[in-house]
Formats: sequence, structure tokens, C-alpha cells
Amino acid sequence: MRLALGLSYNGSAYQGWQSQLSGKTVQDQLEKALGKFADQPIRTLCAGRTDAGVHALMQVVHFDTALARELPSWVRGTNAFLPRDIAVQWAHAVPDAFHCRGSATSRRYAYVLLESTVRPSVEAGRVGWVYRPLDGAAMREAITHLVGEHDFSSFRAAQCQAKTPVKTITRIEVTQRAGYWRFEFEANAFLHHMIRNIMGCLVAIGQGSQRPGWMVEVRDARRRDVAAPTFSPDGLYFLGPRYDASYGLPDRTAAYDWLP
Amino acid sequence: MRLALGLSYNGSAYQGWQSQLSGKTVQDQLEKALGKFADQPIRTLCAGRTDAGVHALMQVVHFDTALARELPSWVRGTNAFLPRDIAVQWAHAVPDAFHCRGSATSRRYAYVLLESTVRPSVEAGRVGWVYRPLDGAAMREAITHLVGEHDFSSFRAAQCQAKTPVKTITRIEVTQRAGYWRFEFEANAFLHHMIRNIMGCLVAIGQGSQRPGWMVEVRDARRRDVAAPTFSPDGLYFLGPRYDASYGLPDRTAAYDWLP
Repeated sequence: MRLALGLSYNGSAYQGWQSQLSGKTVQDQLEKALGKFADQPIRTLCAGRTDAGVHALMQVVHFDTALARELPSWVRGTNAFLPRDIAVQWAHAVPDAFHCRGSATSRRYAYVLLESTVRPSVEAGRVGWVYRPLDGAAMREAITHLVGEHDFSSFRAAQCQAKTPVKTITRIEVTQRAGYWRFEFEANAFLHHMIRNIMGCLVAIGQGSQRPGWMVEVRDARRRDVAAPTFSPDGLYFLGPRYDASYGLPDRTAAYDWLP
Repeated sequence: MRLALGLSYNGSAYQGWQSQLSGKTVQDQLEKALGKFADQPIRTLCAGRTDAGVHALMQVVHFDTALARELPSWVRGTNAFLPRDIAVQWAHAVPDAFHCRGSATSRRYAYVLLESTVRPSVEAGRVGWVYRPLDGAAMREAITHLVGEHDFSSFRAAQCQAKTPVKTITRIEVTQRAGYWRFEFEANAFLHHMIRNIMGCLVAIGQGSQRPGWMVEVRDARRRDVAAPTFSPDGLYFLGPRYDASYGLPDRTAAYDWLP
């Protein structure tokens, strides 16, 4: 039987999603907890590998198991063995043809940015930070140059393993609530560091170091060295993948509304 | 010269506000940082002593100093020596007659509660949690019995040092955003554990263990043992005191809008 799980985590304490010998990753924590609950080793695949310090409101994983347990037991039982900053939100049975990564039709991320003369404190590790004020109109103009199908090589980390740098961004929304900016991205898929690299450029434009049209130059150069430096992981949240509705998987978690 | 500082902190890592030999309190951290910046010992008084695990969006402190520095330097300089979960938001010169506690005309707190079958994860340590659904109408009826001047002995911790248990609550607001409830309280002053004890009773009423009218019985009994247990500190935020407008002190910080 194939099971899919949705999980939320604060990535501040972890070296990213992907399992490492250190054991200090979200995947290691999840598989250790699943192993204790199931009393047998369980290996998982995930929909989106998050970097060190990046959070997830709805990471999705899948695995195969012969163990027959009620779905709520998988949630409660696994959570009993997980650290307090990681929690399984739901468990669903899925057909064997379902693949958490391959079946995803799109991915959503949010970047939360604090604009303040004072660094974050109560929300430290969970927001990016800019000291100088941001120009919303300039940033909104700049993002129009990113929506659609483009070669995003300029925003791609050297170690990216994607087959192609051509991706389709379907939506970027910029909202503001007092000192907090929220940038929400949706695409068929993202390259490694793509959002953090886009955020670096957006901040340069928002702070007036570059014009909005500079985003076109960066995009069309298809060279990483023309873009701004990779922005901090602190404010990045994986909101989750989307799947065909026929799978009946939840679209979002409660934590979605915790963000500004 | 008397200076007032506003500061924000995530209380999760600290044993409350009040200085202790362990040094693991917010006051110890602040005074250590101020001492390094000023190169002389500085002792502070605060507007509201927060318990272990309780957060502050705008704690206010004051102290006297002969050191002449620009106000922004006090903010930046002190923040350079503070841990990442504490930050001074502003510094203002105040008359010698100003006292951060004595001059406060009211205090505001918020309690943020996650209603979910799954425990907090990405917001662990920063929200209270209830498993069973809450009845908003029942809770809103119950709070009407608390607004006004009352003897709040039933909601008072044994170790409370207040001169009188009679306080005036001027406002309680209940708002909801998806799975997150926010309870905002304003009073001339609060007793020790008063809000966490009220929250325990509100949750009992919201989950249907008690009727809304039970709040009157608890209040009028003036005995701590009739009320519900003290609720978790995790979701409690000191939003800050209010002062006469003539002092020109900020009314709120950016982090106010970080909460649901």
C-alpha cells in the first residue's frame, strides 16, 4: 500500500530536508519516527527538497508499506516520535501510480520579508530582513518579467540537478501587512535556489539599486553571475505541491494562515 | 538623563524577564548588552515582568545614565550585543518623572491559540494549542463577564505580589483566522498568571466542558481553586503598555502584525 503524508516544519534547526550522515535533517527525523511507529525501516521520497533553514507548511512524502494501520494512527503515532518543530498534518492512501514528486502539477513557495530598521527578534529565523524601505510598485513591475515560461539559468545554483533550466512560473503575488512583505510563487517546478536568487534581485530593485527592467537583463543573460547574491533562507516556506484533485489530497494546512 | 527602551523578544529560550543568578533571563541579557555598549553597569526596570516562555512585542524599560549617545546608537549598539531572539525597537529620552511601570495607564496582552487535531510545529513555542474545536459564541459570551472592574482573585497566582486583586479590564477581543484564535486583553494592570488562568477557563467554556455563565461563578468565588488550570505560556505575548501621549512613546511595533 502506498501512503502519502503532509508535514509542516520549522527548518531552523535542520540541515535541510535530504538525509545526511549527521542525522540532523528533516528526512532523518521523519524516517526515524516512522521507523519507531512502524517498527520497521521506512524510506521516504519528498515533493520538494528544502535547504538548510528553509521551512515547510506542507511538504508531501510517500512510501510503500505492508503495515495496516488506521490513517489517523499514522499521524498521531508518528508525531509522538517527532521533535516539536516537525509534525505530520495528514495521511492519505494513494494509488501505486502516485508519486509525490512526479505527480505534482505545481509547487508553491512563500517568502516572508521584514522591512525594519531593527533586525528580527520575536520572528528570528522565520523571516528575511531588509533595513532599507522597499518600493512595492517597482517590485511588482519586475515580477511581471518572470511570469511565464523562461530559461531561469540566471537564478540557478551551480549544484542544481534539474534536467532543464526552463520552467513556467504561473503566479507571483506580492502582499504587504505593516512591515511584513509576503511573496508567493507558483510554478510547475523550481530550480535549486531559484526563489532565493529571485528574492535577491527583487530586493535590489525594491531598494532602488536596480531598475525594474534590470530583471529582464538578468533573466535573458542566462548567467548566474549577473544576478544578485542568494538571499537568506530564513523567510522561505514551502507551501506545498498541487496534485490532480482525483487524489483527494489536502491543498493547504492551518499553518498557511500563520504567515502575514 | 532617563531613557526608555522598547524591546521585542521570543521568550522560549528564557526563564522569564526577571534577573536570576543563572543569567538565563531577558533582563540579564539586556543588561549585559547595555553594559557592553555603555561600558558601565546599567540596571533596568520593566513595565511588565513576563514569565518563562512568554514573549513580548513591546516590553518597555527605563534607566538613568550620564552617557551621552544619539538615540539610534542606543538601539543599534545594544542590539549588536543581544542574542538574535531579543531586539531593542526604539529608544526615547523621557522626563525624570517617567516610570515605565508607574506611568503606564494600561497594558495589553495577546494570547494566540491553534485549534487543530495536530500539535503546533512550524509555530511551536509560539502558540497555545487545543485539540478539540472551540465555540466562538460561547467564549465571546463568557468574556463579557470579565470586562469592567472586578476582584480577580480567582485568576491570581499564589505568588502574586500585587497590592490589590481588583483590576479593570477595558477590552477583550476575540478574532479568528483559519485555525488560529487571537485573544487580545487590555486592563489597567494584570495579576500574576491572570491571563493564562482566564485562558484556561475560556478554553473549558469554548470546548463545552463549562457553560459561559460559569465564568461569573468562577469570578465571584474569588478562590483560585474553582478556576481552570493555568494555561500554557507558549501563546502569550505582551503587546506593551500605554502611556500618556505627551511622552511621545511608540504605541506598537512591527511585530504586532506578525501575529494572526
